[in-house]
Amino acid sequence: MPRTGRRPGAGGTGDKILAAARAHFARVGYEAGTVRGIAADAGVDPALVLHYFGSKESLFRAAVDFPVDPADFIPRLLAPGIDGLGERLVRFFLETWDSPAGRPLLALIRSVVASEDAAALLREFVTREVLGRLAKTLQVDQPQLRASLAASQLIGMAMLRYVIKLEPLASARPEVVAGWLGPAVQRYLTDPGVTAGGVRSPRVRKRA
Amino acid sequence: MPRTGRRPGAGGTGDKILAAARAHFARVGYEAGTVRGIAADAGVDPALVLHYFGSKESLFRAAVDFPVDPADFIPRLLAPGIDGLGERLVRFFLETWDSPAGRPLLALIRSVVASEDAAALLREFVTREVLGRLAKTLQVDQPQLRASLAASQLIGMAMLRYVIKLEPLASARPEVVAGWLGPAVQRYLTDPGVTAGGVRSPRVRKRA
Repeated sequence: MPRTGRRPGAGGTGDKILAAARAHFARVGYEAGTVRGIAADAGVDPALVLHYFGSKESLFRAAVDFPVDPADFIPRLLAPGIDGLGERLVRFFLETWDSPAGRPLLALIRSVVASEDAAALLREFVTREVLGRLAKTLQVDQPQLRASLAASQLIGMAMLRYVIKLEPLASARPEVVAGWLGPAVQRYLTDPGVTAGGVRSPRVRKRA
Repeated sequence: MPRTGRRPGAGGTGDKILAAARAHFARVGYEAGTVRGIAADAGVDPALVLHYFGSKESLFRAAVDFPVDPADFIPRLLAPGIDGLGERLVRFFLETWDSPAGRPLLALIRSVVASEDAAALLREFVTREVLGRLAKTLQVDQPQLRASLAASQLIGMAMLRYVIKLEPLASARPEVVAGWLGPAVQRYLTDPGVTAGGVRSPRVRKRA
């Protein structure tokens, strides 16, 4: 089974559901999108949509060619503990881009940069399913801010490595890049100093 | 005088030179581009090109709407010394984006992501005039790598803040974001540990 969740032999019905899902998510966004609505647009039963794609989340991933399953990779990266998480995250991110599964990512970046609607749609999905999931698992303050800062470093590396192709970043092996960026990403995810200044949590603000 | 270097009242001649410059740089790249070649394409004397735009570099900046002059801002950011350089760099970068002068930057990102040729052209310019200049001024090992890593964090923040508009990054004040990112950028620019693993300089390699 391909990692996007689309089943082999889905044939016409699977493609019809995917086309309906793309139009539906583009119209109402990720949060407001429903399996029921997509099924209605495709003229099939909601149970058939779930049979083919499993969940709204995996249907979305299949529709936009998002190459990894956050419900799978986030627990896997966190399993060895929080030590070295930054380095593991950078390495996983680059190894995914460099693999055949990562091929749709450049098109995804292009669509997000070209279209405000595509940017909003991906933002909703990534906020909820990637950053939200990572934030829930981290035992730290301001996890959503921390996950966003980590994401900013990853997406910037992707821009220079895969879009602008700046050396030596473009040709360095993922584990070498992980050595460069790992401590910065680790700091964003875990260092108390990151959130000490600037935006404070409401609790801290009340005390002041 | 606008910061792009284009003089007021340049009128038809200035615009003709700019159009020729865009076509010329797109054809031969930034490094191989010449004021003489652009003048020939525009049907004017090279001295007139220099009279209007000052140098190949500032002509390029005017042609692609690059909003800042690296020969001006890099010495200015480095003047107070290397301490706090990361934070000053982040703050300057975001304040430029947020200012009217930063308005063309989103279009620049869009063109770079949409076109490999535009990406290559901007890469040549940024490598030489921004990263190269920064690298020359820093008294550190592997300055070009360090400047590229700092750039990766800046460009990633720009992607999330201005393109994807992810909160709280999108609405945070520049000085708050500088507090979040500053230490990471400072580490890239100055920490000996960054370059201790991974890609080594030839001198270190010979010793091993």
